[in-house]
Amino acid sequence: MLQLPKQVTIREVGPRDGLQNQSEEVATADKVEWINRLSETGLRYIEISSFVHPKWIPQLKDAREVAGAIRRDPGVTYAALVPNRKGLGAAIEKNVDEVSVFMSASETHNQKNINKSITETYPVLEEVVQEAKQAGKTVRGYVSTVFGCPYEGDIDPEAVFRVSERLLEMGIDELSLGDTIGVADPKQVDEFLTAMSGRLPFSRTAMHFHNTSGMALANVLVSLNHGITIFDSSLGGLGGCPYAEGASGNLATDDLVHMLSRMGIETGIDEEKLADAAAYIQEKVHGELPSHRVQIANRKGG
Amino acid sequence: MLQLPKQVTIREVGPRDGLQNQSEEVATADKVEWINRLSETGLRYIEISSFVHPKWIPQLKDAREVAGAIRRDPGVTYAALVPNRKGLGAAIEKNVDEVSVFMSASETHNQKNINKSITETYPVLEEVVQEAKQAGKTVRGYVSTVFGCPYEGDIDPEAVFRVSERLLEMGIDELSLGDTIGVADPKQVDEFLTAMSGRLPFSRTAMHFHNTSGMALANVLVSLNHGITIFDSSLGGLGGCPYAEGASGNLATDDLVHMLSRMGIETGIDEEKLADAAAYIQEKVHGELPSHRVQIANRKGG
Repeated sequence: MLQLPKQVTIREVGPRDGLQNQSEEVATADKVEWINRLSETGLRYIEISSFVHPKWIPQLKDAREVAGAIRRDPGVTYAALVPNRKGLGAAIEKNVDEVSVFMSASETHNQKNINKSITETYPVLEEVVQEAKQAGKTVRGYVSTVFGCPYEGDIDPEAVFRVSERLLEMGIDELSLGDTIGVADPKQVDEFLTAMSGRLPFSRTAMHFHNTSGMALANVLVSLNHGITIFDSSLGGLGGCPYAEGASGNLATDDLVHMLSRMGIETGIDEEKLADAAAYIQEKVHGELPSHRVQIANRKGG
Repeated sequence: MLQLPKQVTIREVGPRDGLQNQSEEVATADKVEWINRLSETGLRYIEISSFVHPKWIPQLKDAREVAGAIRRDPGVTYAALVPNRKGLGAAIEKNVDEVSVFMSASETHNQKNINKSITETYPVLEEVVQEAKQAGKTVRGYVSTVFGCPYEGDIDPEAVFRVSERLLEMGIDELSLGDTIGVADPKQVDEFLTAMSGRLPFSRTAMHFHNTSGMALANVLVSLNHGITIFDSSLGGLGGCPYAEGASGNLATDDLVHMLSRMGIETGIDEEKLADAAAYIQEKVHGELPSHRVQIANRKGG
């Protein structure tokens, strides 16, 4: 009864979305080494950092150094978040392959996160997208709080559609729809994607789930069943959203790849190399990583 | 696109399947108090213990004491596992409402777990089922290693069907199909249930998933979509299978109820009372319980 695709593309967001929420500092050299190891797993996309002001996210203040030091695999797209033209300038200077802009489907979350209303955010992002395109970069657009907001609660799917449509009109190449606080349930995802079918370009729409309540893989399954083939995830389940209470736990790349592999869906990723890269970053951060793969490996003493 | 039922029945197996794998001893009085608290959550079925020889499962050696001491809520079915006529005798003497027999779809797992071949097991269970029925008890039949065996690997769905059919012919009232080592993936569950549709009585078939690799809720979702409405789970995710490496983690009742509740599916269970009962047993066992609900509560300092 399930309709499943043959192939799935994974966007590894751990070095950015994972590390930005770590309480302890990870050395620049360790980030570089981790990204180099991720490049060898078969992943074709790595979001390496965020060119935001260090005041906002001190954990990623070394974005320039990281971008300058990593080895570039020609088959891998190295991407970074940019909040504005200044960040874009730095990203271009450091020659990242793709930049990501971001905003929220929730007015309050957008205001608290970006310090602007949704309407005020559009022209800022439009300029960034245009300049990025002129510089020959592809652009990704993140929409957050798609399935719920820590301040506003439920979010109208039409609000998500309006923001997504504007980003697509600006010329983004890929849309990423984020369950920022990890509240999405499979029925909600099913209804949302049913409502968006034929209106959003699913072939270049990624789903970005958090595993806060353990439903991320179920939500992935529903999305696959709707023809979505791009997913964001963070190796080991590193990270989450620091602004939302109890919202830890990005969907773990290793758990996602394991499920897809079990179902015969190709990702091009080597699970053993992925486990090695997870073990590497496990040593650099405080506490056991939440992914099931890491926990199974730790129990085996591996 | 999802077809979801309006109601789901949950079989709480924590006091048996959860506690049987605890390395530290939980006092009989604490088990009794936990079961009494579970009775107040809205759960309508609690598997309280196993009447097996203490040599096999020393953690449950107090099955008689537990069965004798718990408060009986007339709306709750109190069940227990029985491996043979001797166990059944004790269960009848202690007046449990329902007994469960068990065997494996894997020849090797059955041999190692029950010390008999599958063929040798049938007459033993047949006698137990008949005697239980004569004593006015309902009977549940567990089939283990349905989606994979630690010794044999893949299990032919037809082997599962043959064992299930025999148990149904003996007169069991409900069948429970167990993913003993937690390897089932959603595609496998989908294909299995498609193959069993119209052959097994889904209205009295329960699925028993483990969350070893984080796929349990996705597997539940697929099962719901096939019309399965009975699920086994263990509060807090307590327990697993001690005989299978890396197979910790029963599906957590609290996470299951949370997902079902978010999807508007009724279980009759009060999530707050469930959280209280989870917090109670959390204090009696070593280490943090794996359920997402418990972990969110712990992070909030609740």
